[in-house]
Amino acid sequence: MKVQKFAVSDAAFERSPGQDADIFAANMIDQRHGGPVTIGFGRYGPDQVLEAEIAVHDTMVILEGGLSVSTEDGTLTAGPGEIVYMPKGAKVTIRAQAKGAVTAYVTYPHWQEAEG
Amino acid sequence: MKVQKFAVSDAAFERSPGQDADIFAANMIDQRHGGPVTIGFGRYGPDQVLEAEIAVHDTMVILEGGLSVSTEDGTLTAGPGEIVYMPKGAKVTIRAQAKGAVTAYVTYPHWQEAEG
Repeated sequence: MKVQKFAVSDAAFERSPGQDADIFAANMIDQRHGGPVTIGFGRYGPDQVLEAEIAVHDTMVILEGGLSVSTEDGTLTAGPGEIVYMPKGAKVTIRAQAKGAVTAYVTYPHWQEAEG
Repeated sequence: MKVQKFAVSDAAFERSPGQDADIFAANMIDQRHGGPVTIGFGRYGPDQVLEAEIAVHDTMVILEGGLSVSTEDGTLTAGPGEIVYMPKGAKVTIRAQAKGAVTAYVTYPHWQEAEG
Protein backbone atom coordinates (compact mmCIF):
# COMPACT_ATOMS: atom_id res chain seq x y z
CA MET A 1 0.00 0.00 0.00
CA LYS A 2 0.96 3.61 -0.47
CA VAL A 3 0.82 6.66 1.74
CA GLN A 4 -2.69 8.04 1.38
CA LYS A 5 -4.77 10.98 2.56
CA PHE A 6 -8.49 11.01 3.31
CA ALA A 7 -10.97 13.84 3.84
CA VAL A 8 -14.57 13.67 5.03
CA SER A 9 -15.59 15.04 1.65
CA ASP A 10 -14.29 11.80 0.07
CA ALA A 11 -16.35 9.59 2.38
CA ALA A 12 -19.29 7.44 1.21
CA PHE A 13 -21.30 7.12 4.40
CA GLU A 14 -23.49 4.09 5.09
CA ARG A 15 -25.79 3.48 8.02
CA SER A 16 -23.93 1.68 10.78
CA PRO A 17 -25.08 -1.93 11.04
CA GLY A 18 -27.46 -3.20 13.68
CA GLN A 19 -29.28 0.06 14.31
CA ASP A 20 -31.62 2.49 12.61
CA ALA A 21 -30.47 5.78 14.08
CA ASP A 22 -28.90 8.54 11.99
CA ILE A 23 -25.42 7.16 12.57
CA PHE A 24 -23.19 6.47 9.60
CA ALA A 25 -19.74 5.07 8.91
CA ALA A 26 -17.45 5.31 5.90
CA ASN A 27 -14.44 3.02 5.71
CA MET A 28 -11.57 4.54 3.74
CA ILE A 29 -9.13 1.64 4.37
CA ASP A 30 -10.27 -1.82 5.46
CA GLN A 31 -9.91 -5.57 4.90
CA ARG A 32 -10.15 -5.06 1.14
CA HIS A 33 -6.78 -3.29 1.12
CA GLY A 34 -4.59 -5.87 2.86
CA GLY A 35 -3.45 -3.91 5.90
CA PRO A 36 -4.15 -4.65 9.58
CA VAL A 37 -6.37 -1.67 10.48
CA THR A 38 -9.62 -0.16 9.31
CA ILE A 39 -9.63 3.62 8.95
CA GLY A 40 -12.71 5.74 8.34
CA PHE A 41 -15.05 8.55 9.24
CA GLY A 42 -18.19 8.45 11.39
CA ARG A 43 -21.14 10.81 11.34
CA TYR A 44 -23.75 11.10 14.10
CA GLY A 45 -26.95 13.09 13.73
CA PRO A 46 -28.11 15.33 16.58
CA ASP A 47 -28.90 13.45 19.81
CA GLN A 48 -28.55 10.04 18.17
CA VAL A 49 -27.77 7.05 20.38
CA LEU A 50 -25.83 3.86 19.67
CA GLU A 51 -25.59 0.98 22.13
CA ALA A 52 -22.89 -1.54 21.32
CA GLU A 53 -20.50 -4.12 22.63
CA ILE A 54 -17.27 -3.09 20.93
CA ALA A 55 -16.00 -6.01 18.82
CA VAL A 56 -12.55 -4.56 18.09
CA HIS A 57 -10.13 -2.06 19.58
CA ASP A 58 -11.67 1.20 18.40
CA THR A 59 -10.01 4.63 18.56
CA MET A 60 -12.15 7.66 17.69
CA VAL A 61 -10.92 11.21 17.15
CA ILE A 62 -13.66 13.82 17.39
CA LEU A 63 -13.45 16.20 14.42
CA GLU A 64 -16.68 18.21 14.81
CA GLY A 65 -19.46 18.44 17.37
CA GLY A 66 -19.30 16.18 20.37
CA LEU A 67 -20.48 12.99 21.98
CA SER A 68 -20.55 11.13 25.24
CA VAL A 69 -19.64 7.51 25.90
CA SER A 70 -21.20 5.77 28.87
CA THR A 71 -20.08 2.48 30.41
CA GLU A 72 -20.66 0.82 33.75
CA ASP A 73 -17.76 2.95 34.99
CA GLY A 74 -19.38 6.27 34.14
CA THR A 75 -19.70 8.74 31.30
CA LEU A 76 -17.05 10.70 29.47
CA THR A 77 -17.66 13.57 27.06
CA ALA A 78 -15.42 14.43 24.12
CA GLY A 79 -15.24 17.30 21.65
CA PRO A 80 -13.09 18.41 18.73
CA GLY A 81 -9.48 17.27 18.88
CA GLU A 82 -10.08 14.74 21.63
CA ILE A 83 -9.53 10.98 21.39
CA VAL A 84 -11.79 8.27 22.78
CA TYR A 85 -10.35 4.77 23.09
CA MET A 86 -12.82 1.89 23.34
CA PRO A 87 -11.06 -1.42 23.92
CA LYS A 88 -12.49 -4.66 22.55
CA GLY A 89 -15.30 -5.98 24.71
CA ALA A 90 -16.37 -2.63 26.13
CA LYS A 91 -20.14 -2.22 26.48
CA VAL A 92 -20.91 1.36 25.58
CA THR A 93 -23.73 3.77 24.94
CA ILE A 94 -22.62 6.54 22.58
CA ARG A 95 -24.78 9.68 22.56
CA ALA A 96 -24.20 12.48 20.10
CA GLN A 97 -24.67 16.01 21.39
CA ALA A 98 -27.38 18.29 20.00
CA LYS A 99 -25.00 19.48 17.29
CA GLY A 100 -24.19 15.91 16.21
CA ALA A 101 -20.64 14.70 15.69
CA VAL A 102 -18.09 13.80 13.03
CA THR A 103 -15.31 11.41 13.95
CA ALA A 104 -12.29 9.70 12.45
CA TYR A 105 -11.74 6.10 13.55
CA VAL A 106 -9.06 3.46 13.48
CA THR A 107 -9.94 -0.12 14.43
CA TYR A 108 -7.74 -3.15 14.99
CA PRO A 109 -8.58 -5.65 13.71
CA HIS A 110 -11.13 -4.86 10.97
CA TRP A 111 -14.52 -4.11 12.51
CA GLN A 112 -16.53 -5.39 9.54
CA GLU A 113 -14.89 -8.81 9.83
CA ALA A 114 -15.36 -8.90 13.60
CA GLU A 115 -19.04 -7.98 13.34
CA GLY A 116 -19.67 -10.11 10.28
CA MET B 1 -8.66 -1.74 29.88
CA LYS B 2 -11.45 0.77 30.18
CA VAL B 3 -12.94 3.30 27.81
CA GLN B 4 -10.75 6.39 28.05
CA LYS B 5 -10.58 9.92 26.69
CA PHE B 6 -7.47 11.92 25.90
CA ALA B 7 -6.93 15.61 25.20
CA VAL B 8 -3.80 17.37 23.96
CA SER B 9 -3.73 19.23 27.25
CA ASP B 10 -3.08 15.89 29.01
CA ALA B 11 -0.11 15.04 26.79
CA ALA B 12 3.50 14.89 28.01
CA PHE B 13 5.41 15.55 24.80
CA GLU B 14 8.91 14.18 24.24
CA ARG B 15 11.21 14.78 21.31
CA SER B 16 10.68 12.12 18.68
CA PRO B 17 13.61 9.70 18.59
CA GLY B 18 16.33 9.79 15.98
CA GLN B 19 16.12 13.47 15.13
CA ASP B 20 16.74 16.87 16.69
CA ALA B 21 13.99 18.95 15.09
CA ASP B 22 11.15 20.48 17.06
CA ILE B 23 8.97 17.43 16.59
CA PHE B 24 7.44 15.79 19.62
CA ALA B 25 5.28 12.78 20.42
CA ALA B 26 3.18 11.88 23.45
CA ASN B 27 1.90 8.34 23.80
CA MET B 28 -1.36 8.15 25.73
CA ILE B 29 -1.83 4.36 25.29
CA ASP B 30 1.04 2.03 24.36
CA GLN B 31 2.75 -1.28 25.11
CA ARG B 32 2.61 -0.55 28.83
CA HIS B 33 -1.18 -0.90 28.82
CA GLY B 34 -1.57 -4.33 27.25
CA GLY B 35 -3.55 -3.46 24.11
CA PRO B 36 -2.50 -3.88 20.48
CA VAL B 37 -2.26 -0.22 19.40
CA THR B 38 -0.34 2.88 20.44
CA ILE B 39 -2.42 6.06 20.61
CA GLY B 40 -1.01 9.54 21.07
CA PHE B 41 -0.54 13.12 20.00
CA GLY B 42 2.18 14.64 17.81
CA ARG B 43 3.37 18.24 17.71
CA TYR B 44 5.45 19.75 14.90
CA GLY B 45 7.06 23.16 15.12
CA PRO B 46 6.86 25.55 12.14
CA ASP B 47 8.59 24.24 9.01
CA GLN B 48 10.11 21.27 10.80
CA VAL B 49 11.11 18.23 8.76
CA LEU B 50 11.21 14.53 9.65
CA GLU B 51 12.61 11.86 7.34
CA ALA B 52 11.70 8.33 8.32
CA GLU B 53 11.09 4.79 7.17
CA ILE B 54 7.81 4.00 8.86
CA ALA B 55 8.30 0.98 11.13
CA VAL B 56 4.60 0.35 11.84
CA HIS B 57 1.24 1.05 10.26
CA ASP B 58 0.75 4.68 11.26
CA THR B 59 -2.50 6.65 10.95
CA MET B 60 -2.36 10.40 11.64
CA VAL B 61 -5.35 12.72 12.03
CA ILE B 62 -4.46 16.39 11.62
CA LEU B 63 -5.96 18.42 14.47
CA GLU B 64 -4.35 21.83 13.93
CA GLY B 65 -2.09 23.41 11.33
CA GLY B 66 -0.96 21.27 8.45
CA LEU B 67 1.79 19.17 6.98
CA SER B 68 2.91 17.48 3.80
CA VAL B 69 4.11 13.93 3.35
CA SER B 70 6.44 13.17 0.44
CA THR B 71 7.29 9.73 -0.91
CA GLU B 72 8.73 8.48 -4.16
CA ASP B 73 5.16 8.62 -5.49
CA GLY B 74 4.72 12.33 -4.82
CA THR B 75 3.60 14.73 -2.12
CA LEU B 76 0.25 15.02 -0.33
CA THR B 77 -0.82 17.87 1.91
CA ALA B 78 -3.20 17.52 4.85
CA GLY B 79 -4.95 19.94 7.17
CA PRO B 80 -7.40 19.86 10.06
CA GLY B 81 -9.82 16.93 10.03
CA GLU B 82 -7.90 15.00 7.40
CA ILE B 83 -6.32 11.57 7.82
CA VAL B 84 -2.92 10.45 6.54
CA TYR B 85 -2.22 6.72 6.43
CA MET B 86 1.41 5.64 6.28
CA PRO B 87 1.75 1.88 5.89
CA LYS B 88 4.67 -0.02 7.40
CA GLY B 89 7.78 0.32 5.26
CA ALA B 90 6.88 3.64 3.67
CA LYS B 91 9.82 6.01 3.24
CA VAL B 92 8.52 9.48 3.96
CA THR B 93 9.58 13.06 4.44
CA ILE B 94 7.11 14.89 6.66
CA ARG B 95 7.22 18.69 6.49
CA ALA B 96 5.16 20.85 8.83
CA GLN B 97 3.66 23.99 7.36
CA ALA B 98 4.67 27.45 8.59
CA LYS B 99 2.01 27.29 11.29
CA GLY B 100 3.24 23.90 12.55
CA ALA B 101 0.91 21.00 13.18
CA VAL B 102 -0.79 19.01 15.91
CA THR B 103 -1.80 15.43 15.15
CA ALA B 104 -3.44 12.43 16.78
CA TYR B 105 -1.93 9.07 15.87
CA VAL B 106 -2.74 5.39 16.10
CA THR B 107 -0.04 2.84 15.31
CA TYR B 108 -0.24 -0.93 14.94
CA PRO B 109 1.80 -2.50 16.33
CA HIS B 110 3.48 -0.33 18.98
CA TRP B 111 5.95 2.07 17.38
CA GLN B 112 8.28 2.23 20.36
CA GLU B 113 8.77 -1.53 20.26
CA ALA B 114 9.29 -1.55 16.50
CA GLU B 115 11.86 1.25 16.66
CA GLY B 116 13.52 -0.04 19.81
